[in-house]
Amino acid sequence: MINPVLVEVTRGGLVESRHRGAVAIIDADGAVVQSIGDIERPVFPRSAIKALQALPLVESGAADKFSLSDREIALACSSHAAEPGHIATVNSMLAKIGLDYSALECGCHRPTNEKASLAIAEQRQSPLASHNNCSGKHAGFLCLACYMGVDHAGYIRRDHAVQREVHGALEAMTGAAHGEDICGTDGCSIPTYAVPLKSMALGFAKFATGIGLEPVRAKASKRIFKACVENPWYVAGTDRAGTRIMEAGKGRVLVKTGAEGVYCAAIPELGLGVAIKCDDGTTRAAETIVATVIANLLPKSDAEGEAIRAIGHQTLKNRNNINVGEVRATNNLC
Amino acid sequence: MINPVLVEVTRGGLVESRHRGAVAIIDADGAVVQSIGDIERPVFPRSAIKALQALPLVESGAADKFSLSDREIALACSSHAAEPGHIATVNSMLAKIGLDYSALECGCHRPTNEKASLAIAEQRQSPLASHNNCSGKHAGFLCLACYMGVDHAGYIRRDHAVQREVHGALEAMTGAAHGEDICGTDGCSIPTYAVPLKSMALGFAKFATGIGLEPVRAKASKRIFKACVENPWYVAGTDRAGTRIMEAGKGRVLVKTGAEGVYCAAIPELGLGVAIKCDDGTTRAAETIVATVIANLLPKSDAEGEAIRAIGHQTLKNRNNINVGEVRATNNLC
Repeated sequence: MINPVLVEVTRGGLVESRHRGAVAIIDADGAVVQSIGDIERPVFPRSAIKALQALPLVESGAADKFSLSDREIALACSSHAAEPGHIATVNSMLAKIGLDYSALECGCHRPTNEKASLAIAEQRQSPLASHNNCSGKHAGFLCLACYMGVDHAGYIRRDHAVQREVHGALEAMTGAAHGEDICGTDGCSIPTYAVPLKSMALGFAKFATGIGLEPVRAKASKRIFKACVENPWYVAGTDRAGTRIMEAGKGRVLVKTGAEGVYCAAIPELGLGVAIKCDDGTTRAAETIVATVIANLLPKSDAEGEAIRAIGHQTLKNRNNINVGEVRATNNLC
Repeated sequence: MINPVLVEVTRGGLVESRHRGAVAIIDADGAVVQSIGDIERPVFPRSAIKALQALPLVESGAADKFSLSDREIALACSSHAAEPGHIATVNSMLAKIGLDYSALECGCHRPTNEKASLAIAEQRQSPLASHNNCSGKHAGFLCLACYMGVDHAGYIRRDHAVQREVHGALEAMTGAAHGEDICGTDGCSIPTYAVPLKSMALGFAKFATGIGLEPVRAKASKRIFKACVENPWYVAGTDRAGTRIMEAGKGRVLVKTGAEGVYCAAIPELGLGVAIKCDDGTTRAAETIVATVIANLLPKSDAEGEAIRAIGHQTLKNRNNINVGEVRATNNLC
């Protein structure tokens, strides 16, 4: 199956580039509420499932034991932009378990937020592991390791107790086998497992509703959802699409991006989970797809829905701030 | 027509993302030597045709009048990375006509070369118009305006004498009408015209061979070709694919990238022009496509060809420098 063109990028009235993709909208019983394109093909969720990867941290009792705040839980589900508030929160999480950034095994990269990147350049500082967009998740892994009383060294390895817990939560939530044959290494060096979009969406439908989950997991899901939607800046950062969509949604929608054009979303009031993948891995298109899909799902003329739809319609400006085109959803998404 | 998948991005043995595209390989008589996908659909060439846009600068006599060096001519064809050597060369071109960066109308952006960007941040400097990747081309436009004795202000406008010269050269080289209906505004604010890939490739076949051109234009084409292939760093920058391909080609191949996944190439020894577009506008895929296409065109076991092919096969490393996947050509390109 060839996925349809879901997003067009225009210039001067013509279409300049085209993005294909697939969309799965699933309820907590696994029913396909809507699908576009191939939702059976394995997709690496990358960071889009961080909210599910954080379940063991909360349901184990680790989050309570170390008195993690909602902002810290949101950061454990984040791909943050390494703005000062993100870094302070990572450091605070690590301090609660007596560790610092040197325990993080995610590797270093420059802050994705340009202002933050330039600020450390002006100070002639090199980026630390805490600047890695995944450092909040990794701080959560370290909290879990400490709580479990295991050596935290090597917590990124597939056979480490922490990753085994995460693996179990992912299999249970998505209902998909997470075998070695579908395992790749993520940007931050933890395992990532390619599963069908419909399985990812199912995981987020169960997460959104608690349906079919043990009470402790249902409670943890609710707590993580609340932590993220009430602190969207901690899940992404300034002017990021995920932050803007969650802010516009006013607590009704959790969205999370993953590298290579993936987004997942949970919409409790509709009992639905959403997973999307842009075939070519492009962020701009994934943003337009997820915003449009969510807006379409919410009731007609819903103010939050229309605000979210607007985020998906992007104006392109050039170096002289002239409007030169747009990124827009095609009719295949409407 | 749906263009085929030309590039795959893998992770852990699975395909994570896919890029579709089209390829036109044309000789100077306009014969289609090879095509993949839709080569009739209008494509904005963006910066991929800077070598053709530089023809009026050279054939008018402006380049001689202002004693432009080969490096300066290469820079007039460049999308440079704003490394110190690029900026010095822009400034030298502007000084030859008694102007400075304030005459550039391309707008500002941070250097695309990270080291260069961080270096100006460390100095707490803001980027200037000279840091714009198109500033070499714009310096060439200013040289042409001065040579023509016209007011250079507004040289980016479609109706300015400079852009009319460029427009005439593009129509003549590609054989395609460049009407208002296919005109968009480029990142640097000059007009860009969407024409079929086969027309772009024809333009580069004529540029590569001089066939069908007036002697003065044929001579200018040869001079621009030589200036670029002998100074590939001035056409792009450190570690850029275009630079690496031209270096590997040892003077046999000119390649130039354009935004949104376009590449053009000229191969005089084969009498061919090449134009490629990745449907979704992604640079990594366009690089793999153009490198593979050029390698396929060169004789079997050609050392330069195989060096160019290797540039198109990219290994992906994560934040801990672990190999996590690759960007590779599909069988549709082989």
